Amino acid sequence: MSEHRQLCGYVRESQIEERVKLKGWVQKRRDLGGLIFIDLRDRSGVVQVVFNPEVSNEALQTAENVRTEYVVEIDGKVIARDENTVNANLATGKVEVMADAISILNKSKNPPFLLQDESETSEELRLKYRYLDLRRSPLQETFKLRHQATQAIRSYLNNEEFLEMETPMLTKSTPEGARDYLVPSRVHEGEFYALPQSPQIFKQLIMMSGFERYYQFARCFRDEDLRADRQPEFTQVDIETSFMSQDEILDMTERMMKKVMKDVKGIELETPFPRLKYDDAMERYGSDKPDTRFGLELVNVSEVVKESGFKVFRSAVESGGTVSAINVKGQASEFSRKDIDKLTEYVKIYDAKGLAWLKEQEGELQGPISKFIEGDEASSLRSMLDIEEGDLILFVADKTSVVHDSLGALRQKLGKELGLIDESQFNFLWVTDWPLFEYDEDLERYFAAHHPFTMPEREDISKMESQPGEARAQAYDLVLNGYEIGGGSLRIYEKELQDKMFEVLGFTKEEAQDQFGFLLEALEYGAPPHGGIALGFDRFVMILAGRTNLRDTILFPKTASASCLLTEAPDSVSDEQLNELHLELNEKAKNRQSGQE
Amino acid sequence: MSEHRQLCGYVRESQIEERVKLKGWVQKRRDLGGLIFIDLRDRSGVVQVVFNPEVSNEALQTAENVRTEYVVEIDGKVIARDENTVNANLATGKVEVMADAISILNKSKNPPFLLQDESETSEELRLKYRYLDLRRSPLQETFKLRHQATQAIRSYLNNEEFLEMETPMLTKSTPEGARDYLVPSRVHEGEFYALPQSPQIFKQLIMMSGFERYYQFARCFRDEDLRADRQPEFTQVDIETSFMSQDEILDMTERMMKKVMKDVKGIELETPFPRLKYDDAMERYGSDKPDTRFGLELVNVSEVVKESGFKVFRSAVESGGTVSAINVKGQASEFSRKDIDKLTEYVKIYDAKGLAWLKEQEGELQGPISKFIEGDEASSLRSMLDIEEGDLILFVADKTSVVHDSLGALRQKLGKELGLIDESQFNFLWVTDWPLFEYDEDLERYFAAHHPFTMPEREDISKMESQPGEARAQAYDLVLNGYEIGGGSLRIYEKELQDKMFEVLGFTKEEAQDQFGFLLEALEYGAPPHGGIALGFDRFVMILAGRTNLRDTILFPKTASASCLLTEAPDSVSDEQLNELHLELNEKAKNRQSGQE
Repeated sequence: MSEHRQLCGYVRESQIEERVKLKGWVQKRRDLGGLIFIDLRDRSGVVQVVFNPEVSNEALQTAENVRTEYVVEIDGKVIARDENTVNANLATGKVEVMADAISILNKSKNPPFLLQDESETSEELRLKYRYLDLRRSPLQETFKLRHQATQAIRSYLNNEEFLEMETPMLTKSTPEGARDYLVPSRVHEGEFYALPQSPQIFKQLIMMSGFERYYQFARCFRDEDLRADRQPEFTQVDIETSFMSQDEILDMTERMMKKVMKDVKGIELETPFPRLKYDDAMERYGSDKPDTRFGLELVNVSEVVKESGFKVFRSAVESGGTVSAINVKGQASEFSRKDIDKLTEYVKIYDAKGLAWLKEQEGELQGPISKFIEGDEASSLRSMLDIEEGDLILFVADKTSVVHDSLGALRQKLGKELGLIDESQFNFLWVTDWPLFEYDEDLERYFAAHHPFTMPEREDISKMESQPGEARAQAYDLVLNGYEIGGGSLRIYEKELQDKMFEVLGFTKEEAQDQFGFLLEALEYGAPPHGGIALGFDRFVMILAGRTNLRDTILFPKTASASCLLTEAPDSVSDEQLNELHLELNEKAKNRQSGQE
Repeated sequence: MSEHRQLCGYVRESQIEERVKLKGWVQKRRDLGGLIFIDLRDRSGVVQVVFNPEVSNEALQTAENVRTEYVVEIDGKVIARDENTVNANLATGKVEVMADAISILNKSKNPPFLLQDESETSEELRLKYRYLDLRRSPLQETFKLRHQATQAIRSYLNNEEFLEMETPMLTKSTPEGARDYLVPSRVHEGEFYALPQSPQIFKQLIMMSGFERYYQFARCFRDEDLRADRQPEFTQVDIETSFMSQDEILDMTERMMKKVMKDVKGIELETPFPRLKYDDAMERYGSDKPDTRFGLELVNVSEVVKESGFKVFRSAVESGGTVSAINVKGQASEFSRKDIDKLTEYVKIYDAKGLAWLKEQEGELQGPISKFIEGDEASSLRSMLDIEEGDLILFVADKTSVVHDSLGALRQKLGKELGLIDESQFNFLWVTDWPLFEYDEDLERYFAAHHPFTMPEREDISKMESQPGEARAQAYDLVLNGYEIGGGSLRIYEKELQDKMFEVLGFTKEEAQDQFGFLLEALEYGAPPHGGIALGFDRFVMILAGRTNLRDTILFPKTASASCLLTEAPDSVSDEQLNELHLELNEKAKNRQSGQE
């Protein structure tokens, strides 16, 4: 057994005069007045080590050869720092270690970028040398926080008698949903496994197996074109329960979040979280995942302006659309016509045809459309929008979905730019009463808004065929600071209802049987009422850690083209490997490859 | 919020006269003297429910329609059972619930097999209806135990400041080791990811990232032909540390096992575990994973018989082989010549040419070879093998590896058949000092016995090129009751040594660079000394749960042909999916498919 090792970051004044053995990385070396100072770093933090020729000339000479990121072992004695060299910013700042021996465990070339807290190096270079980037303190802290959040969630669920269970990664491909990653089978010629997009069906089967309370930190895969906040593989906290109502599931989730926020951030969350119906979220925030850390709410003024003298308003309402507005409090004089023109350009990204505006200045509504807004209409607007001197009112009149999208985005933009967001707040929110189906205008058919196993509201089952657009789901999303961090639903547990759902979604009996026959059969053997929730854990950690890049929360992330810059995956494989899988590249790929050679 | 639900298995005498609401599955229904009795089951256990027409005729009538595996909700009152109907085998056996209301939450068809504790149904049928098989109590208990073992390990490692971290599943294919499962890339035409056979390289990179203590319950994949105790995907408890010696890693692992055995089985393990060098394990047990719950050790008698009058012994030693024996205590009269002939047939499976034997009976060694064994040779054997009246001695004289394999297998067979194994014991054992390389006689080259990142013993580095067969590794296996449940090593952390290792393994510089260039580069930037261990978690759970089939410990396992009988994965996919991946089936597969149609 080797001698006891002292962690660098934990050396304290109480240890003065004690001998210690340190192991770690050289963060920095300074030579000063015949002495050498090394900032030595390990997983716990940093401590200053001094080499003095009067203590050991041999150690000093070795220390002279040491460079940044060398790995060393140091023996020495803890001493107090001179008062004028105390570093109040460092936990170990009142002490240093006077070294009498050092050995170099491993050398390091000069790192390709500085390993300081805030790096300005390109992300590409940092991903190639990920093992160096990860040594930086902000990333070390992020993964410690990720660990803590993981354990807080586990601890809560274990106490609630949930069982952690592992579902298969080599599963069956289903065309519904996003694109699958496929895994060719060697044994079954011409057949493929799929990597799971989520353990949805397996967690339902676990309920049908009578376990009642399941969870898993589940790796999920989607072969989609990546955006900044997407990764081809991601982790979700997957939870499923039997015999619980929607309210019980929301309550359980809230208590879990309470525990995480307490353990990880020291924050006491108030529960229950606010709950917003989907329709209200869209109407009030123009978003199904509103950031409620600030106001600037949308106000639907259609009723007030339906007979407006301003034709744009009137005809929007007449053609079944909506007119909504936001009151940008006290900003009338801050926004010039040019500024407003820029906002108009911005809402056009979301297909809005324009942005109407009014300013309340000198006791009256001003602006190009003010002449159309008079009498009752004006006073109703004043009261609905709580208009006061100096307010700027922005209107979009359009198809309802365009109004929501554009004003919702504008709200978010203004909230940020006007500094209305308190970054220290964590605002959780439930969005409930989701539509069961979404209509795809291009394909002219309905799709499952959540997934085809989502339970409709009992009273809306009759609408599934007659008015599918009106049917609501027993589904809920958990929103945090404007991010969707989780979602779930009660599931269909009755065979007849599941058959009907597939029918409405346009499956023939044979297609439903071919793809989900095993599930339909399982529903016939005493499937319990069940439901659950899945949290997007990477994104949740990102918000907890105050990061804005999802890649910062994933240990070895992939780029937007799904490459690993460190290992250079994916890569070509041998013809022998392909042949064993009964595959070859298709003509186009072959031609392109030989063209490249 | 719905009314509080009472779990069936927890109903107790203290609740008599209390009203309860139960939800669960009908385990059994009996109609008796105008009453109906239902055994109601949920995740916690079973309770008896009674329907009496005098309490509620309506409830009784509904109960009449209820069948096995129906899901029901029952309201009633806890009452004491008549003394003569108390069931002492059931935790709830002193009480029953007098129902006044029942509603059927879901029906069930008659299950295709009886859901009783010991099922004699074919495994094939049980895997197809896995969700029914999993409702059986022994499997419910196995997955509760798996959960407990998981949490015990986590709890230990969290306390030791390990961070749980997630490594990628979409990684780079490396030809070394077993066969990879490949995942075609859509974005990178003609390129593939591989699913990890283990997170080996990533856990080393985590050490190079300065995290020092990492663990993960890691899903691993091997596309190998399956045996009874193999699965295409399996879970390993993956642990890696920096700056720890081999002894420290073994000690840490022992304390972890102590905690698991205490938490899960209530057993106090003694530590340190016995440690056997690989060579000694082979010599004494004929196995690198000996079951030490019984004796029957092999004794190498080569020295004693090297000039034996029995030519088979003499020539085995002369040609560099070995003669070893086991003393089957007191069994001389139990084994007839015919019985011994059967044992001889058995050792021939392991390439032994024969099995020589002696019996000590009536104060002398008897048997066909006894006439050759006289004087000093006989007395030395008596003393080395501790021969007493009634003992049966079995010899194999052959190439050393054949002696070990055959006698090792024979030892295991006899130990089992003679009832020498105490099934209640959990015997942990370390096997250390493994060879660094294994020689493949067919390919006439050395392979890494563990993997190419294993650290050689410092003093054996010079042997790597000159006598690779003699070089030992700083590697260790953890053995439990004759199963290898884990293995690990210190890793190479010096670039030059890793280069040399690849060279000895026959990699050209270009091949090493192409496959492991990123790792070799990482070694140049301050890689710390590191090492770790990985536990085969499925197998460990199997032993803890007293099961013999690995599939019993995996929720949704695959068959020997890597199929899921429940979901029918793998399955064919659409031409469109293949085309997006730039692939087509090769000619042979296409021909076979069209031939089938």
